[in-house]
Amino acid sequence: MAHTEREYTIDHRLSDRDENIHSAWDNSLDPALTVEPGDVVRFECRDAVDGQIDVETTVEDVPDVSFDPVHPLTGPVAVEGAEPGDVLEVELLDCQHKGWGYNVFFPSEMGLGLLPDDFEEPGLHIWDLEGDVGQFVNGIEIPLDPFPGTIGVAPGEDGTHDTLPPRDVGGNMDVKHLTEGSTLYLPVEVEGGLFSTGDCHAAQGDGEVCVTGIEAPMFVTARFDVRSDMEIEQPQFRTEGPFTPTGVDEPMYGTTGISDDLMTATKKAVRHMIDHLHNERGLTRAEAYILCSAAVDLKISEVVDAPNWTVSAYLPESIFPE
Amino acid sequence: MAHTEREYTIDHRLSDRDENIHSAWDNSLDPALTVEPGDVVRFECRDAVDGQIDVETTVEDVPDVSFDPVHPLTGPVAVEGAEPGDVLEVELLDCQHKGWGYNVFFPSEMGLGLLPDDFEEPGLHIWDLEGDVGQFVNGIEIPLDPFPGTIGVAPGEDGTHDTLPPRDVGGNMDVKHLTEGSTLYLPVEVEGGLFSTGDCHAAQGDGEVCVTGIEAPMFVTARFDVRSDMEIEQPQFRTEGPFTPTGVDEPMYGTTGISDDLMTATKKAVRHMIDHLHNERGLTRAEAYILCSAAVDLKISEVVDAPNWTVSAYLPESIFPE
Repeated sequence: MAHTEREYTIDHRLSDRDENIHSAWDNSLDPALTVEPGDVVRFECRDAVDGQIDVETTVEDVPDVSFDPVHPLTGPVAVEGAEPGDVLEVELLDCQHKGWGYNVFFPSEMGLGLLPDDFEEPGLHIWDLEGDVGQFVNGIEIPLDPFPGTIGVAPGEDGTHDTLPPRDVGGNMDVKHLTEGSTLYLPVEVEGGLFSTGDCHAAQGDGEVCVTGIEAPMFVTARFDVRSDMEIEQPQFRTEGPFTPTGVDEPMYGTTGISDDLMTATKKAVRHMIDHLHNERGLTRAEAYILCSAAVDLKISEVVDAPNWTVSAYLPESIFPE
Repeated sequence: MAHTEREYTIDHRLSDRDENIHSAWDNSLDPALTVEPGDVVRFECRDAVDGQIDVETTVEDVPDVSFDPVHPLTGPVAVEGAEPGDVLEVELLDCQHKGWGYNVFFPSEMGLGLLPDDFEEPGLHIWDLEGDVGQFVNGIEIPLDPFPGTIGVAPGEDGTHDTLPPRDVGGNMDVKHLTEGSTLYLPVEVEGGLFSTGDCHAAQGDGEVCVTGIEAPMFVTARFDVRSDMEIEQPQFRTEGPFTPTGVDEPMYGTTGISDDLMTATKKAVRHMIDHLHNERGLTRAEAYILCSAAVDLKISEVVDAPNWTVSAYLPESIFPE
């Protein structure tokens, strides 16, 4: 996708060496780097399961993959002058994948993802990433719009905090529009902010339903600033999308999920889309679940027509071969 | 917005006279019209509160507005050959407003909308609609993309059913992308389907958070077909959007709502957006709530990073004057 280009010079580089990696949020960690406001840092980020999956991994190997080390994050970076109550501004300047990625979902008993009960066996797709495109099955091509799935600062609360759930300070938000050219605002809870990022995705549908985007080791380049003039409780951002794969209005197939519970409505919308992809597009249900996680967007159509809410799932039809 | 134009000739017209209006779903209603598959019908639709609000109404009048007659629907139309288990295909050919509309929210005690506890007093905005644009306060202009908020067929279950909640057979789904050029698929539960529509919106954000879109009396033109080759449990659709006000990727301001409950996350995202519109754009909180309902889109960013989910609210910045 074409994003607004911004000029910058890299001031610091953080590799993915062990000394720059941590797998829990913890405000007692020593900074891997301390920077001035205005500095640009290029982060090398490991994949979400820290190298347990590579391009030769098969679906038979998935039960041996541990979800324990998620997510190896690169950092923390302390930003001079950032104090609790301030906002850390993070300008995303570049996201560069390393040529491959994967979508995985885990066996039912792990209880992960939106529909663990629907999929007893695990699923895996290894993606060859070439420039802006990833190849799926049946000639399906997904445009890539890489972004960091996990991006945040250290919580004010002492101790170690699991990286899986997002929090007030950000973290594993999986906001797919935090692409190159976007700016993220994070509420600072500790001195220096202690910023980390990782768990990068080459693409993802809103919802990330199978529990993974296109997980990919990546370089993320960002410029930091401290905003004492802003006050926020949870992360906010500016973005130019993309809001469709092509960047312009294009044909979508939509399913609805209607229920008096918002989570149930969400599950229904995704189940209906899996049915559609299986029946009309010839995908296996496992492939359909993965495609939903990589490329289908969940929107809340209404949350006010009591007692039933409507969630809709949107499949861009431009990803299919003619 | 530019939508794909389709050629058609109107075969039937249903006015908004009393004999064509009903305010509950009920499969025992006599059809106002019976059509053949392939026929095109132009429906004249009343506004959601059936004429209780007009262009002279002020916010002081809102407590006297009854929510009881919602929603007057035009129909039902029986389609020859539609049997339970079939799918009714509804091709939306044209949506034409009548030059005005309104957003309203009601006093706290009515318990309507996403944030009834946040707004004790009611709110109202009368919109002048000129062509494709609606005028809000402070020079804000909302592009119009009219659609029927309520569109569906009669439930198989006997008796009268409130039109407020959507159901398996559709109804008040408020899917904002059911615009001109879109095609809706509805599961048929009774002979003839018994299609009705109304509660039209000149524009709406995904979520319809204050409980109204830009409510507007409207003409809706649709072509019907019966699809015996499809099988669906809840409505599905094809659409070309629009997915942004301009139809292309454009700058958005986003807020997040992060919580272990999806509805709470949704409320947080909207509250943060109301704060943003109040603090940064100078709107009153009531104006901000209305603008969210008319033009801010709710997306489910992730529902898998247990135990916390992320809902994001997207404000298109092109609606503000330069």
